[in-house]
Amino acid sequence: MAPGPIDKSQVPQATVPRLARYLRVLHRLEREGVPKVSSKELAERLDANAAQIRKDFSYFGEFGVRGVGYEVEYLIDQLSRCLGVSEKWKVIILGAGKLGSALARYRGFQEEGFELVGVFDSSQRVAGSDIDGVTVRPERELPEFLQENPVDIAILTVPGEVAQLVADKVIAGGVRGIVNFAPARLASVDGVFIRQVDLSTELMVVSFYLSKECSPR
Amino acid sequence: MAPGPIDKSQVPQATVPRLARYLRVLHRLEREGVPKVSSKELAERLDANAAQIRKDFSYFGEFGVRGVGYEVEYLIDQLSRCLGVSEKWKVIILGAGKLGSALARYRGFQEEGFELVGVFDSSQRVAGSDIDGVTVRPERELPEFLQENPVDIAILTVPGEVAQLVADKVIAGGVRGIVNFAPARLASVDGVFIRQVDLSTELMVVSFYLSKECSPR
Repeated sequence: MAPGPIDKSQVPQATVPRLARYLRVLHRLEREGVPKVSSKELAERLDANAAQIRKDFSYFGEFGVRGVGYEVEYLIDQLSRCLGVSEKWKVIILGAGKLGSALARYRGFQEEGFELVGVFDSSQRVAGSDIDGVTVRPERELPEFLQENPVDIAILTVPGEVAQLVADKVIAGGVRGIVNFAPARLASVDGVFIRQVDLSTELMVVSFYLSKECSPR
Repeated sequence: MAPGPIDKSQVPQATVPRLARYLRVLHRLEREGVPKVSSKELAERLDANAAQIRKDFSYFGEFGVRGVGYEVEYLIDQLSRCLGVSEKWKVIILGAGKLGSALARYRGFQEEGFELVGVFDSSQRVAGSDIDGVTVRPERELPEFLQENPVDIAILTVPGEVAQLVADKVIAGGVRGIVNFAPARLASVDGVFIRQVDLSTELMVVSFYLSKECSPR
């Protein structure tokens, strides 16, 4: 039976960051010349749970063979394609404040298929300046830019009050993926994937696990 | 039957950020004078799924009454305590680079019970400078500082190569929660909760959903 394409809506969102981790470890194994790996070995490498790993992989068809393990190269190929790492993604950053500039300078993601093609800011003061070779453009040029340069993913590091406005603009310009660092929840739009990242929430996830006081009363 | 305390290890990690969102919306409802809310109304406010909301709340005992909904104030009280928002948490930032400074300046989280008590950096050049009233201290003073000032949560914004080293230091100093922005996976330690945040992974989560090519071959 030839397995069909994967229905991504069936993959829990919490699984996807783990797939990215698996891929990084598999690349390391490949460099070490390891051809096969069991879920147990992967779990040890990742400081994770073997059953969880098997479950995560199960969304992508039958990969492992009991007693033999997973083929590293095959798994890299599968995960790379599923995570879109074998494709090239054009990325822009909206907001050249402290966080936006920090992200623009952090080019680690460039190696993983994400190319920063533009940085935009609404402030006259910042527009025209240069971040490691990428010119900061005035935000009013955004619609025209998007018409001439199709962009896949926008990273939002604007103030919370204007986040929705800026999101509307990039979506109107054809952007289908948003990573939102602004402390404001964006309205969902069909066909657009929005990932919210926010420090307050991250801190609360930690305090949830640290907090002792949690019982229904 | 009096419900017992909640076993947090039973709550999926993906649920916790949603609880933080629910809490914010509930606070808004409280300000609007709304005493009761159904999962359906909450879902509309949150642009989320009502069944998901009911499932998330179910980890915390029987909250809702069919046809009547959830009591807003009761829910706020429950979630605040579970998320540790009613407690005060001492936070330090390790690494006063672009990202560390941006996070230090972003004080939104202070309103949610997180108090920034120190910023540390290994560079002589940065130590002694001031970020909105918080002095950047040399990293070598960290062990002594932690002895005199118990800290709950450390935010790591150091380079990936030194992240584990710095994590070891804060854990040795009694810190039990870490939000790691450094592009390096930290080893898990019993009794310490580590939350990894990293731009590459966030971008991959987006490209996973944008990518068309994903079928087993």
